[in-house]
Amino acid sequence: MPAMPTEFELIARYFTHVQHAGEPVLLGIGDDCALLAPPAGEALAISTDMLVEGRHFFPGAEPQALGHKALAVNLSDLAAMGARPLGFTLALALPAADEQWLAAFSDGLLALADLHRIPLVGGDTTRGPLNLCITVFGSVAPGQALRRDGARPDDEIWVSGELGDARLAVEMLYGRLAAGSVPDAAATRLHRPQPRLALGLALRGIASAALDVSDGLLGDLAHILDRSGVGAVVDADAVPVGSALRAQPKALQQACALNGGDDYELCFTAPRARHDAVLHAARQSGVPVTRIGRILGEPGLQLVDAAGRTIALPSRSFDHFAEE
Amino acid sequence: MPAMPTEFELIARYFTHVQHAGEPVLLGIGDDCALLAPPAGEALAISTDMLVEGRHFFPGAEPQALGHKALAVNLSDLAAMGARPLGFTLALALPAADEQWLAAFSDGLLALADLHRIPLVGGDTTRGPLNLCITVFGSVAPGQALRRDGARPDDEIWVSGELGDARLAVEMLYGRLAAGSVPDAAATRLHRPQPRLALGLALRGIASAALDVSDGLLGDLAHILDRSGVGAVVDADAVPVGSALRAQPKALQQACALNGGDDYELCFTAPRARHDAVLHAARQSGVPVTRIGRILGEPGLQLVDAAGRTIALPSRSFDHFAEE
Repeated sequence: MPAMPTEFELIARYFTHVQHAGEPVLLGIGDDCALLAPPAGEALAISTDMLVEGRHFFPGAEPQALGHKALAVNLSDLAAMGARPLGFTLALALPAADEQWLAAFSDGLLALADLHRIPLVGGDTTRGPLNLCITVFGSVAPGQALRRDGARPDDEIWVSGELGDARLAVEMLYGRLAAGSVPDAAATRLHRPQPRLALGLALRGIASAALDVSDGLLGDLAHILDRSGVGAVVDADAVPVGSALRAQPKALQQACALNGGDDYELCFTAPRARHDAVLHAARQSGVPVTRIGRILGEPGLQLVDAAGRTIALPSRSFDHFAEE
Repeated sequence: MPAMPTEFELIARYFTHVQHAGEPVLLGIGDDCALLAPPAGEALAISTDMLVEGRHFFPGAEPQALGHKALAVNLSDLAAMGARPLGFTLALALPAADEQWLAAFSDGLLALADLHRIPLVGGDTTRGPLNLCITVFGSVAPGQALRRDGARPDDEIWVSGELGDARLAVEMLYGRLAAGSVPDAAATRLHRPQPRLALGLALRGIASAALDVSDGLLGDLAHILDRSGVGAVVDADAVPVGSALRAQPKALQQACALNGGDDYELCFTAPRARHDAVLHAARQSGVPVTRIGRILGEPGLQLVDAAGRTIALPSRSFDHFAEE
């Protein structure tokens, strides 16, 4: 039987990432630390996410898609901050040194990294229950960062793309909906979310607050409201619904679009006076945006229909510890 | 039955870290990203480590010590780079929201963070098999970083502190040695390693190469030799042996000190002409250092005894995937 490859051999084989010219990496994988040179005068934006088998992805999930998604959800946090990506680290626990799995996983991971020209600068691999922890680094001028605490009364509330298809896919995969195969559009949204990096960059100096929709639109918007000390009214009928979801009953459409999660679209606010600037930023970055509501001075979140009638809020957003 | 606390409540309760005046944190926990302002002109040093139950620590390990160690091993990488810590993130998977465990874990973690004035700037908590992933950020002028590739023929090889006690504790805890309780000195070395941050900073401009001893002295030194394209001769009798280990047979002393791992001391090289500067840096940082060998132009690692006679190399160092 051939010897198991060592940790060092695995890293060399699957995670030696070709660096692009002009990247800020002074020293990559292979030393105690990586060394990055951030642009002068910019702040460093940092985010970390841990993905656990059976919780954030299905046991036996296709490793190429998993590699894509693990990086995408972290880049989505940089997008929501208006930060330009500098690099990322990967820590990976694997039940066994399964080379077929590693090859596919690193394919998916590094394809997305290459697309956005983001170098893998360091990491850790170990044996253990499958767990992926990625930390991303970006840069943004401190005054231009899209924080959560800048929404002001009368700002417009916007969302990028369409919502709810990823949650539809989850519900179908768990068999909680009437039988039927998962539509391609929904599966793609669940497995291959696209971080809205270009839109985040284009919104610097325009948006007053932003975040990415990972736990569900209403629950995530509530974080902006809390941090900004404001309230909001959202037109449920204005929220853009994913193409696969549109074939479903209206109640399911709203549940998935308003509270679904896993969308990785940007939800942001901007002064009314910047309405055209928002639309310009959206065209520039090739991502549609939709105005879905308005910030109020009074705390609280009101949901209305197209006719302006108040409707009941669906139950609260997904929470990793409260949900069972 | 009281409701389980949510993820957000847990973060607020146990991981809201008081920031010290003058720290570089522009925005801490609670947004999509943390924002840090690194010192102008310095490079960013980054390292990440993942600790898995049953592999890096014993199932049921005391959570306060675990919190200390999880951060300590990451800070040790910054020390080995000569970097000044700026902050860290924590991603944590827990089988259940066990508040007693979390309180003790965060106590140990934040006590060490406070000692070195390093803010916790972000993180992620989720449910899953126990897994801790910490990423640390430091800063260092690019030309002063203690890399692994700078060792030159005739440089002296040094190690800080004493080696082997942590491995002695592991062997005793696994019951692989004659019965007896683990000496306090060995248990402390295993559970509460002290990152050699002050020594790393003091060695900038003096050491030609450095790393921290995590997998065993000889295996780790081999990384310096590989990256620098040199060889070395090490005097096995000169390697400083931990105080608990000194009561053990000579063969066990050498096995633990040369190949034990979990020491988190610094192994570094420096030109002979900087011998006194090394000793001065050690006094300045309050950490003893010992010269254990010399760099050779010819690749390969030779082990000799005090009389200069070549002795056999013990088996290779611990490797997370090869070992079973």
